[in-house]
Amino acid sequence: MRLTFLGTGAAGGVPLWGCGCVVCASARIDVSYARRPNCAVVEAGEVRLLLDAGVMDVAERFPPGELLAILITHFHTDHVQGLFHWRWGVGELDVFAPHDAEGCADLYKYPGPLRFRHLSKFETFNVSDVHITPVPLVHSKPTLGYCIEHDGIRVAYLTDSSELPPATATFLTEWKPHTICLGCAYPPGMEGRRNHFDLPEAIALSNDYPSSRIVLMHISHHLDEWLRAHPDALPERMVLGHDNETLDFSGVP
Amino acid sequence: MRLTFLGTGAAGGVPLWGCGCVVCASARIDVSYARRPNCAVVEAGEVRLLLDAGVMDVAERFPPGELLAILITHFHTDHVQGLFHWRWGVGELDVFAPHDAEGCADLYKYPGPLRFRHLSKFETFNVSDVHITPVPLVHSKPTLGYCIEHDGIRVAYLTDSSELPPATATFLTEWKPHTICLGCAYPPGMEGRRNHFDLPEAIALSNDYPSSRIVLMHISHHLDEWLRAHPDALPERMVLGHDNETLDFSGVP
Repeated sequence: MRLTFLGTGAAGGVPLWGCGCVVCASARIDVSYARRPNCAVVEAGEVRLLLDAGVMDVAERFPPGELLAILITHFHTDHVQGLFHWRWGVGELDVFAPHDAEGCADLYKYPGPLRFRHLSKFETFNVSDVHITPVPLVHSKPTLGYCIEHDGIRVAYLTDSSELPPATATFLTEWKPHTICLGCAYPPGMEGRRNHFDLPEAIALSNDYPSSRIVLMHISHHLDEWLRAHPDALPERMVLGHDNETLDFSGVP
Repeated sequence: MRLTFLGTGAAGGVPLWGCGCVVCASARIDVSYARRPNCAVVEAGEVRLLLDAGVMDVAERFPPGELLAILITHFHTDHVQGLFHWRWGVGELDVFAPHDAEGCADLYKYPGPLRFRHLSKFETFNVSDVHITPVPLVHSKPTLGYCIEHDGIRVAYLTDSSELPPATATFLTEWKPHTICLGCAYPPGMEGRRNHFDLPEAIALSNDYPSSRIVLMHISHHLDEWLRAHPDALPERMVLGHDNETLDFSGVP
């Protein structure tokens, strides 16, 4: 199994329009500093799944037949905006998502080829030989994390949450993921933040899963800037994800 | 004054995901056949205005200071989707738009640097020395056309309408635009169409404005395909717009 980040940025990505911070300025010059909104692709055997659709050209990247399904964590625009023009296409594609009567804009009204399938928490389902368990998160919209298992490899994808519900924490303790991709938008002491983990919270969470590697994603320019000044702040087992980076789990015991 | 089309496509643009028609197939091979969703930029003296934001990377194309304002015709996603990540930026930018309590997704809730200013029909306003009159159109959401005048040049931008309200038709008759950019999504005889002009209706409309050039936009793959089989179908004074094409009105009497 492999997971490739297409976007590791918080809502607006990096660089932000009009922002003069050192991170946004760097990202305008060197695309390796850029972070697009949330999006990743999982490849497991013959299966390819999209996780969120925050990157705007995902429909172009994946012609029909390239994906078996899309998993949406929640219906904020920075996670679904790549679906807006996709739904005017032709064909059929399963889109698994949390129950959210509102959805986003008129996606439900005009779904086109996108077949929205609403999931119940902790009810494992299969896409071919990939086993997926949706777990509830705590956010300003109904939000699911996805625990993905293939051929004994277990990866949890947990974006956009301010805490782990006890049942989700317990599930993860028993499930023992090899890697947790964890949304972490903010540095320590950020005022006005809400709905997302900051770095101290992410570190505290990582201590509850001592056998898991933690890869941070959904990263704002604030966190990138803070980490430039604190390059040794991440504990062992925790790394920053980057756009276009592939996590390869082949050979993982 | 100049107007450059950034996107001349209907909602999903051209090519559409999964579509095997000759137009979509051509557009995958040759980008000159592609049509992105609705978006244009008007340049008049020192003023640069964006008309709709259907193209997803418009925020990147226009750093702060490049635009004096954005004019939104209506809040369907294919006209505003380029605003979604823009609003997480820093600064201030006026966005003129029709009264629409719903807006699109959470744009009003989190506008960021976008200062939405709701317009009243037929009340002319100025952006520097450009005079703009919003005119009502008939669509499935509150929709405005924009009649733009600078230095004696008059251009009407009328997308997404199924007919012209009588007051709009009368205004245009008296205003005598040099050019009408007209949304025309469909070929003749298209079943199930609604909310947009088809070609016979666009031709009928053009006959009401004999001194105006008509440039079609918001074009679906269906219309492009039909016109390949009927290359002489467009009357004199009517042309198809294309992405990245500039209409230059300098020297117009």
